[in-house]
Amino acid sequence: MELIRELIPLQSAVQAWRRRNQCIALVPTMGNLHEGHLSLVREAKRIAERVVVSLFVNPLQFGPAEDFSAYPRTLAADREVLITEGVDLLFAPAVQTLYPNGQAEQTLVVVPPSLSEILCGASRPGHFTGVATVVCKLFHLVQPDIALFGEKDFQQLLVIRRMVADLNLPVIIQGMPTVREPDGLALSSRNAYLTEAERAIAPELYRTLLRSIDRFQQGDSLPSVERKALAELEALGFQPDYVQIRRQQDLGRPKPDDNALIILGAARLGKARLIDNQCFLRAE
Amino acid sequence: MELIRELIPLQSAVQAWRRRNQCIALVPTMGNLHEGHLSLVREAKRIAERVVVSLFVNPLQFGPAEDFSAYPRTLAADREVLITEGVDLLFAPAVQTLYPNGQAEQTLVVVPPSLSEILCGASRPGHFTGVATVVCKLFHLVQPDIALFGEKDFQQLLVIRRMVADLNLPVIIQGMPTVREPDGLALSSRNAYLTEAERAIAPELYRTLLRSIDRFQQGDSLPSVERKALAELEALGFQPDYVQIRRQQDLGRPKPDDNALIILGAARLGKARLIDNQCFLRAE
Repeated sequence: MELIRELIPLQSAVQAWRRRNQCIALVPTMGNLHEGHLSLVREAKRIAERVVVSLFVNPLQFGPAEDFSAYPRTLAADREVLITEGVDLLFAPAVQTLYPNGQAEQTLVVVPPSLSEILCGASRPGHFTGVATVVCKLFHLVQPDIALFGEKDFQQLLVIRRMVADLNLPVIIQGMPTVREPDGLALSSRNAYLTEAERAIAPELYRTLLRSIDRFQQGDSLPSVERKALAELEALGFQPDYVQIRRQQDLGRPKPDDNALIILGAARLGKARLIDNQCFLRAE
Repeated sequence: MELIRELIPLQSAVQAWRRRNQCIALVPTMGNLHEGHLSLVREAKRIAERVVVSLFVNPLQFGPAEDFSAYPRTLAADREVLITEGVDLLFAPAVQTLYPNGQAEQTLVVVPPSLSEILCGASRPGHFTGVATVVCKLFHLVQPDIALFGEKDFQQLLVIRRMVADLNLPVIIQGMPTVREPDGLALSSRNAYLTEAERAIAPELYRTLLRSIDRFQQGDSLPSVERKALAELEALGFQPDYVQIRRQQDLGRPKPDDNALIILGAARLGKARLIDNQCFLRAE
């Protein structure tokens, strides 16, 4: 596996593959790889001739009060894992390499506010602009035929799909199911921020989402379901941000004839901001 | 020459060329082709194996009070000319094809305000966001190796270069010199808006820029040169927007050791908003 940190060697490697019409898959990550990432890498290996993993903790998607500096960085271990998985190329650029003029002088990709400023976008202003911009750059640099993203970050997945559709990017976006611990906690690098006591409570976020789906299916109203979920999370020791039921398609508020729904939740627990979601079909 | 209006046939045509590793040049236009456009097309033919011309009057780059509806549309004539020039493919999509969700729900490419909100960007809010967005879409659809733009729209050329650099787009941007009428008027589709009397005055915009360069080279100060130019244009019957001397590189205000300079001017004359510019080196 090649470890590449600069743009020109990356573009040369990719060009050589493209000239031979080899199918390239990209798995964009912020590193600190866990089984969630590896499920993306393994699917990428299965479907493409060449697999590129990018590893970049993107400052543009972190707010000033967020955990950019604290975010776990484990390049050496990540590299070993990706060698074992048979990845062809690991692209791990420095911040200066992707933002040579600084973040304030960076051209931005801005997805419509109806998608990017709701839910996590409401509490993290500019977050999805940062995500869309860096993913757009990575798509241009790697020129993948397909790129894989985890469904744990469901809103992010939709933001990327929306950018790709709106800007006619020639890449297929594949979402992959959330990987969970045996007790239901969604894998996330941010779980490392949890104390032992918090870690014991953390799976309750997902359980609360599942319980809320049950209530909704049994006829409880949307506002009531959401209010109860927030109260339960607070009682458990979370500082909940939101729990909402939305349409899977575009995260719009569900209309009576929308059947493909999703419940999404975000809550702070100690130093960690946890998110999770579960898709479901409205009961007849 | 193929005339294509839809996305899928365009992508199929381009894919076939790319798979054979043929070099593709793109000339983006709003149609109503004149010798300025044709100089781009001829250079494209010279350097690339396949030439695509796009023809799209892009509503996203027009303000609500601007000339989107009035802009001259001459597809049949444009098509004949491009056949004669040996162009491979003319892409002329409908508005609905490029903006299926409407303009308000379109992902945007936003170049930094330091470049996009000065000069023409100051009097045309959102204009360069509209330009960058549609050109980004066209680059993804056509996947050109090289794209050609006229230097008459110098700020637009720099906006595109900036977008390409900041988003790492794999395309070379080539600027081409402004083509002029014998009396010096820069070719532009908007010249068609001029009455006979206005057409006789129109070349004075360029002459005023040249005269202003002389004054600057002879030691007149920047503010004085610019003030005199605006006064002269007004006396001639223009409604001047700006005349400014800037750095060629990024259109920043020139510092004493910047030598590669450009003078740019914009002025309304009757129904037409005319722009022009001239690059020059600071006299020793």
